[in-house]
Amino acid sequence: MIIDWKKIAGDMYEKIKEEILVSWKKLSLQAILVWNNSSSLRYISQKRKWAEYVGIEFRLEHMSENIGEEALLNKIKYYNNDVDTTWILVQLPLPSQIDSKKVIDLINPKKDIDWFHSENQWKVLLWEHTGLIPCTPLWVIEILNYLKVDLNGKLVTVIWRSNIVGKPLVALLINSGATTVCCNSKTKNINEFTKKSDIVICAAWNPGLLTLDMINDKTIVIDVWFTIIDEKIYWDANFEEINNNWNMITPVPGGVWALTVANLMNNVLKAGKLQEM
Amino acid sequence: MIIDWKKIAGDMYEKIKEEILVSWKKLSLQAILVWNNSSSLRYISQKRKWAEYVGIEFRLEHMSENIGEEALLNKIKYYNNDVDTTWILVQLPLPSQIDSKKVIDLINPKKDIDWFHSENQWKVLLWEHTGLIPCTPLWVIEILNYLKVDLNGKLVTVIWRSNIVGKPLVALLINSGATTVCCNSKTKNINEFTKKSDIVICAAWNPGLLTLDMINDKTIVIDVWFTIIDEKIYWDANFEEINNNWNMITPVPGGVWALTVANLMNNVLKAGKLQEM
Repeated sequence: MIIDWKKIAGDMYEKIKEEILVSWKKLSLQAILVWNNSSSLRYISQKRKWAEYVGIEFRLEHMSENIGEEALLNKIKYYNNDVDTTWILVQLPLPSQIDSKKVIDLINPKKDIDWFHSENQWKVLLWEHTGLIPCTPLWVIEILNYLKVDLNGKLVTVIWRSNIVGKPLVALLINSGATTVCCNSKTKNINEFTKKSDIVICAAWNPGLLTLDMINDKTIVIDVWFTIIDEKIYWDANFEEINNNWNMITPVPGGVWALTVANLMNNVLKAGKLQEM
Repeated sequence: MIIDWKKIAGDMYEKIKEEILVSWKKLSLQAILVWNNSSSLRYISQKRKWAEYVGIEFRLEHMSENIGEEALLNKIKYYNNDVDTTWILVQLPLPSQIDSKKVIDLINPKKDIDWFHSENQWKVLLWEHTGLIPCTPLWVIEILNYLKVDLNGKLVTVIWRSNIVGKPLVALLINSGATTVCCNSKTKNINEFTKKSDIVICAAWNPGLLTLDMINDKTIVIDVWFTIIDEKIYWDANFEEINNNWNMITPVPGGVWALTVANLMNNVLKAGKLQEM
C-alpha cells in the first residue's frame, strides 16, 4: 500500500488557508536561492505554489551562484531588519564558497521559517514543546501519527545522521518512546536492524540502498530524500520492488513536496504566533 | 578486566592542578544542596574533596528540603551577580516542589559548571565543538578514548534516554561514527541488541538490569548510574557476575566519583576560559 500523503498534505493546506484568512493580515515569505540545481528549483517552485495557495506573499531573490559569502550575509541582515518581510528562507544546499551554518545562524531566529537556526534546533533535540520542528522530521512524525502508529516500544531504524534530518528525527523518536537505531555509512549489517524494524526511515541520498530482502512484511518504509540523476528521480528505497510486494511505503513520487511544503506553511503560522509573543 | 578509571581520573587531576597553579588566580565553586539523600551527600563531599585538591575554593550552601522554589531562584540570582562566585552548581535531583529546569535555566550559562543549562546543552547535541559537555556523558567518551576504541562502525547500545545522560550520549556517539541504539523501558528484547553490541552503556537506575547472558565475550560494559538501597550500592549491570566472567567493565565501585568529578573540574577550567572571552 502506498501511503496517501497527498491527502494528508491537502487536509493541512485547507486548515492553514482558513486560519490565515480568518486571523492574519499581510504575510510575506522571502526566499533566497543561490544554487540553481534542479532539486532546489523544484523545491522553490513548490514553495511558491503552496505559499500563494494559502494566502502568503512569496518573494524570490535569485542570486548568482558565484556570489561571495559577505554579499549573502548582507542580504540576510537587510531582510532581518525589513518590517515587510515576515519570514526568511534560504534554499539549501549553498555553493561551497559559502559557510551555510554562518548564513543560517545570522537569520533572526523568529524569521527562520525552516527552523534550521541553532537556537531553534536545540529545542527540538531537548524536546522543548514551545519550539518549532524542522519540516522534514516533522512530516515523518505526521505520517506516523496519520497512520495511528503508537511509537512506544516500536523499533525504528534511521539510516543516516545529518543535523537537518537524521539527528532531530532520532531525538523525536526517542522522545516518542521508540527504540531507535541510528545507522551511518560505516554500519555493519544494516539489514540485521531493518529486518526486525517496525519502521525504517531512509535519509541517506543513496539510491537503491534499501531492498525488499532487508525488511519484513510489516515494516513501514518512509523514504525522505531522493537523488536526481539525468533528470530521473531515484529513492533510497528500491521503490518499485518494495511497493509491488509489500506493506506500506512512502513516497508517492511527487507527494514528498506536498507534505514538506505543507509543514513549512504550518511552521509559518507557528512562527507568526511566536513573533507576536 | 576492570577498567582502571581511578588512574584515568588521577592523571586528569594532576594536569588540572598544575594548570590552575600556573594560570589562575582565585577560583570559587558555589554548590547548593537542597535534597539530603545519601547519593547527593556523597557527590557533594567528593566534589569538595577534589575541588580543594586542585586548588578551587569550594563553598556549600545547605538549604532546607522544604524550601520553596522562589527562595532557591533568589539564591541563584544572588550568585549570578556575585563577582566572587566563579561557578554555580545545584546538586540534582531537587525535591518535587521545585521545577529543576526553571532553576537550572536561571543560572548564568557561563557559571553553569554542570553544563545542564539548555543553551549549553544544544551545543552538545549539535556537536558544537566550542561548547562544554555534561560531565557524565563526557567521562563515558573519555573512557572509550582511553581504551583506544575507534567508535566508527561500532555498535553501541545505550539503555535509557534522560536529557542529562542518555540523549547527549546518543548524540556524542552518533557524531563519533557509532551505530547507536537507544533503548527505553518499553524496548522489547533488549538482549537482541546488547548481545551484538561492542559497547553497552547502562544509565537506567535499574539494579541488575544487565546480566551475563545478555552480552558477548567482547562487549565493553559501562555502567553509569547506581542505586543505593539500605546503604548498599547496586548497579544496572550485575557487576560481580559480569566482572568474574567477562572482558571489560566499569565501574570500579567508588571510582565513578573520581571520574565524574575529574571531568567536572575539567569543565571548570574550560568554562573559566569561556568567561574570559
